[in-house]
Amino acid sequence: MKWITEEDLENISIGATLLGTGGGGDPFVGRLMALQAIQKYGPVKVLQLEELDDDALVMPVGAIGAPSVSNEKIASEEEIYGPAEVLKETFPERTQAIMPIEIGGGNSLLPIACAAKMGLPIVDADAMGRAFPESQMVTFFLKGYQPEIVAMADSQGNRVIFYPKDGEWSEKIARSITDVMGGSANMVDNVFPGKVVKECAIRGTLSLARQIGAELTNMKETTAPVERLLTRLNGFSLFEGKINHIERNVEGGFTRGRATMTGISRNKGEELELLFQNELLLAKKDGQVVASTPDLICALDYETGRPITTETLRYGARIHVIALPCDPKWRTEKGIEVAGPRYFGYQVDYQPVEELMGEKAYVL
Amino acid sequence: MKWITEEDLENISIGATLLGTGGGGDPFVGRLMALQAIQKYGPVKVLQLEELDDDALVMPVGAIGAPSVSNEKIASEEEIYGPAEVLKETFPERTQAIMPIEIGGGNSLLPIACAAKMGLPIVDADAMGRAFPESQMVTFFLKGYQPEIVAMADSQGNRVIFYPKDGEWSEKIARSITDVMGGSANMVDNVFPGKVVKECAIRGTLSLARQIGAELTNMKETTAPVERLLTRLNGFSLFEGKINHIERNVEGGFTRGRATMTGISRNKGEELELLFQNELLLAKKDGQVVASTPDLICALDYETGRPITTETLRYGARIHVIALPCDPKWRTEKGIEVAGPRYFGYQVDYQPVEELMGEKAYVL
Repeated sequence: MKWITEEDLENISIGATLLGTGGGGDPFVGRLMALQAIQKYGPVKVLQLEELDDDALVMPVGAIGAPSVSNEKIASEEEIYGPAEVLKETFPERTQAIMPIEIGGGNSLLPIACAAKMGLPIVDADAMGRAFPESQMVTFFLKGYQPEIVAMADSQGNRVIFYPKDGEWSEKIARSITDVMGGSANMVDNVFPGKVVKECAIRGTLSLARQIGAELTNMKETTAPVERLLTRLNGFSLFEGKINHIERNVEGGFTRGRATMTGISRNKGEELELLFQNELLLAKKDGQVVASTPDLICALDYETGRPITTETLRYGARIHVIALPCDPKWRTEKGIEVAGPRYFGYQVDYQPVEELMGEKAYVL
Repeated sequence: MKWITEEDLENISIGATLLGTGGGGDPFVGRLMALQAIQKYGPVKVLQLEELDDDALVMPVGAIGAPSVSNEKIASEEEIYGPAEVLKETFPERTQAIMPIEIGGGNSLLPIACAAKMGLPIVDADAMGRAFPESQMVTFFLKGYQPEIVAMADSQGNRVIFYPKDGEWSEKIARSITDVMGGSANMVDNVFPGKVVKECAIRGTLSLARQIGAELTNMKETTAPVERLLTRLNGFSLFEGKINHIERNVEGGFTRGRATMTGISRNKGEELELLFQNELLLAKKDGQVVASTPDLICALDYETGRPITTETLRYGARIHVIALPCDPKWRTEKGIEVAGPRYFGYQVDYQPVEELMGEKAYVL
């Protein structure tokens, strides 16, 4: 992929919603923003990691806050472009490219809008390989790189730049500012030179999102789209069921909640519970963990195979829950400490999804 | 006053504690900081408002948060100097002087430490003519000037610069950051060019604080120091009593509370209630308001005449409560809207203290 054009946005949006494990912000709103920006400013050039200059800076762009809020409080232009613009003014000579901070939902599309508006290329990579709820949950942090400068903006016209002590302070300060900004804001975090980005970022994830979207919507093949996808990504089908309970709370700048479902089809008589904090983090079948963060847990519409966000899970919906192994960077001791189930307060040890599925794995 | 030397600090500290109406941060800690800085870097040059260049910038320095916190969590050098330093780096050519944001307690002494360390003069003025708990309660705001840039730092090494939409957003964002920084932080707010400072600031308040301190500690005169002071500042003696109840809560980045006292001496048989939010804001004698913000309500030790802060009010202490008329800038419609009793949730209209005292005024 050399350029992102209008035609790519739907597929990127579908693929990123899947990789976003239910979070990353609303893909519909993000897609409209990217579409409007590309129509106005033209297609966005795509850079591979190898094409980055060692010393030039990459600006990772993303929204922060509770998706329940940002779906209703649509970001203004000032909010979307403000953080990247204020940092480009700070480093006028060194800014080379925009990058999605995470490949998830709206947060994979906002950076495209931003790149189009600012006339900058976008890097075909991200810092999570999925979406995560907290801002220190990035591969830079796993390698010991701390953000030195962070920029934020809201729709009111407030702009903030801060120099955190480290990644955990960056999350604390940003979350507190997000709260006062009304529960959602946009930010540029983890600004690093190309050399560090090449070392840490997860490569090719924008292309991957586009390919996933293309596969899920390709009706010409004889095999079912979801089956093809699981084979291609070494994923597992966890459960087919109907949601019988859903609860969501907006607290501390996140949307936290759980959903339970009763099995249909081959899962008749079984129960699945999904726990989420913006993203889907833990899946339990009949009380047993079958997949957990940092592996990817994704909910798909049972009929269409389209991925859905935690915000759009609703009572009575029939869904297909799948799991994908996360990038190996997250399966290290540090990765599990930063984004494993215990970090989120779930009293279970992380086990790779393929081990959990073991003999019982039902691969479509 | 052309220079501030070691010898001036005690008098400034005493006078500023009185003008601070119980708030503005701990004067003892602030005095030690200023003393250390002057011993290390030398005396601080004092500028009168007339000496400011119209285009040069003045940096108002102050602490923000709950005094209950900052008394125990002593500020580091990084916290005290960080905000002014980061702004001086932002405007290297234009920074002319430091100014106290308020003339109250520690917040009149921290700027002296900051000026000494940075080799900058200090302006003999402030933006309140007293202390107030919220950061938009400044004479700049009354005249319609909104802060364009704000800098903050904490003892952890976190630094923040923000560009608020207006003064009320500045307060909201700063208070939220203060909370996450642990309940107290230092900041530079309301950075304006000399022309605006000349128009808005309340002149001569550092000199006034020093004079008040000198008067209260001058034992050579025949009349009592407090009596001389009330005559000189057109003030009123409100009550002499013994504290029989005191309560304080640290909430939302403030120390809120109330104290009640039973009369002694000429007030025998009467009751006084004092309400505060960092600063003393309302005084009621036997249920009747006798003084209210924005007029100054000050508590003095009954024996020594030394002013005391709301943090050091304690059960059993005998105190003398006095009131002083505020600067006329606060007696406008806008001034009362911004810092009058109703803003703080007290359901009474502001009346100037001299009207409230009326015939019954007991002027010592």
